[in-house]
Amino acid sequence: LTRSSGEGRSERPVIAIHAGAGDHGAELRGHEDECHAALLEALESARTALDQGLDATHAVQAAIVVMENFELFNAGRGATLCSDGAVEMSAALMRGSDRAAGAVAVVHHTENPILGARAVLDSPQVLVVGVPADELAAQAGVPQLPNEHFITERQRERLRDAAAELDRATVGAVCLDGEGLLAAGTSTGGIRGQPPGRVGDCPVIGAGTWADGHAAISCTGDGEAFIRCTAARHVAALVERGASVDAAAAQALQLVAELKFTGGLIAVDGEGNVALPYITSVMPRGLWRAGREPTTWVL
Amino acid sequence: LTRSSGEGRSERPVIAIHAGAGDHGAELRGHEDECHAALLEALESARTALDQGLDATHAVQAAIVVMENFELFNAGRGATLCSDGAVEMSAALMRGSDRAAGAVAVVHHTENPILGARAVLDSPQVLVVGVPADELAAQAGVPQLPNEHFITERQRERLRDAAAELDRATVGAVCLDGEGLLAAGTSTGGIRGQPPGRVGDCPVIGAGTWADGHAAISCTGDGEAFIRCTAARHVAALVERGASVDAAAAQALQLVAELKFTGGLIAVDGEGNVALPYITSVMPRGLWRAGREPTTWVL
Repeated sequence: LTRSSGEGRSERPVIAIHAGAGDHGAELRGHEDECHAALLEALESARTALDQGLDATHAVQAAIVVMENFELFNAGRGATLCSDGAVEMSAALMRGSDRAAGAVAVVHHTENPILGARAVLDSPQVLVVGVPADELAAQAGVPQLPNEHFITERQRERLRDAAAELDRATVGAVCLDGEGLLAAGTSTGGIRGQPPGRVGDCPVIGAGTWADGHAAISCTGDGEAFIRCTAARHVAALVERGASVDAAAAQALQLVAELKFTGGLIAVDGEGNVALPYITSVMPRGLWRAGREPTTWVL
Repeated sequence: LTRSSGEGRSERPVIAIHAGAGDHGAELRGHEDECHAALLEALESARTALDQGLDATHAVQAAIVVMENFELFNAGRGATLCSDGAVEMSAALMRGSDRAAGAVAVVHHTENPILGARAVLDSPQVLVVGVPADELAAQAGVPQLPNEHFITERQRERLRDAAAELDRATVGAVCLDGEGLLAAGTSTGGIRGQPPGRVGDCPVIGAGTWADGHAAISCTGDGEAFIRCTAARHVAALVERGASVDAAAAQALQLVAELKFTGGLIAVDGEGNVALPYITSVMPRGLWRAGREPTTWVL
């Protein structure tokens, strides 16, 4: 079952967001209105960035900051806990025009990890992990907070509840801006109960996050499988060779499914075509295009 | 300038190794015999693994262990130093048949980081970083040593010598075994003087290391550029679509060159065709095919 809520070609700019593919529909059902509101706020924040003349990378990071700050999504405050009870976060940001990229992994203190990824994108590095990643974010002015700030009682309970569904949701955004620039970003707390030090696909450029001149992609799901498929890069490669973004996204998820794993992704191509497919039961998501009203889906 | 020392199709097994693309020819010139001997020992060690009935992944890791232990190559003991004077190491190993992969980054104590990558490949994870990566390797029986073990006086001097050429060499191996299984592995100390926490392409699956049913690739050079090109995955994708491994490898290095960076790679396809191109001035390397004598090149 691949679901999609994409629409055909349209005016730019276009912004699409996701808050993680999973099977946590029962939990989301109790918070539907809050989730719609958070998704809408993320879209509005991205739109405001574009209205201010900022580019697609800034729109992507603006949307992700809102979702990181929303406690019910698995990134920033409220992220899933590692097996030792701490929060470890990763994020990545990529600009399509020159494939400049920045990613952080295993950060513990950076209030908004996507802004840490931004700091790396603006540095000579592409991937910085651990304490130095927090320090680089701090030097770029991103507030640093105790790890306890990110830990919510809800996630403490879920870590204790071995029967809870596997949490591996993530947040992400892709954008085609008014100048035709593509960008993608992703941010996550990883998988609930993961061993400390485990890094998924989110900060692995080409796996969970990718943008080039043809498409921008952000993935969510079983990160190890997305790495083994270079899933995000695969979508862009197929689009480059003439596939529709819908067909390319479906094919990438098919590769993940063949490995007996699951997830979803969002993708936008250089003409503004969007695909938002997932092979889990739910993937909260949102879409805004120039000249239309923003739309959000939770269940 | 793209050089290659590949040869046409041949019998399997085939093992190719590299000890890093760079512009450090002047330094290598003083140690040519030692380097030839180390490369030859790495090929022989891989061949012994195959003779014992082990598969391509074990041949790759056997070759890399020898190169990690050789002080003049940039991996394991003798690796380049970070700006703070410590050694931080990364390694990755990937099996082509099922695209199982394992990688470690920012390990400080694991005697042979490629064996840490092996431990991750054998775990549910794909990428583990920092202290937990050392711990996982230790649990798998890989000896742990003080970071001082990895620091050589030669590298201390090079860190002090701002005029020395940029060090960013890496070691790697690819293999097509007698059963037709492809595997790739890479191990590195990163770039001399890099900030702590910086991670290059080596442990980024699809960037510095990749193996699938079509080809196995290990890269070396300016890691950030290889990540931004998903260089290793790109070679395999081109081979899958019918390109020769020579043409595919050259095209991947062309992408790196277009970003104004440099490096080299080794690749083998499912028929045993090998490419060993580099766009730097030197890349020590070796090749062994069934029924032939092993060959090594230093300058």
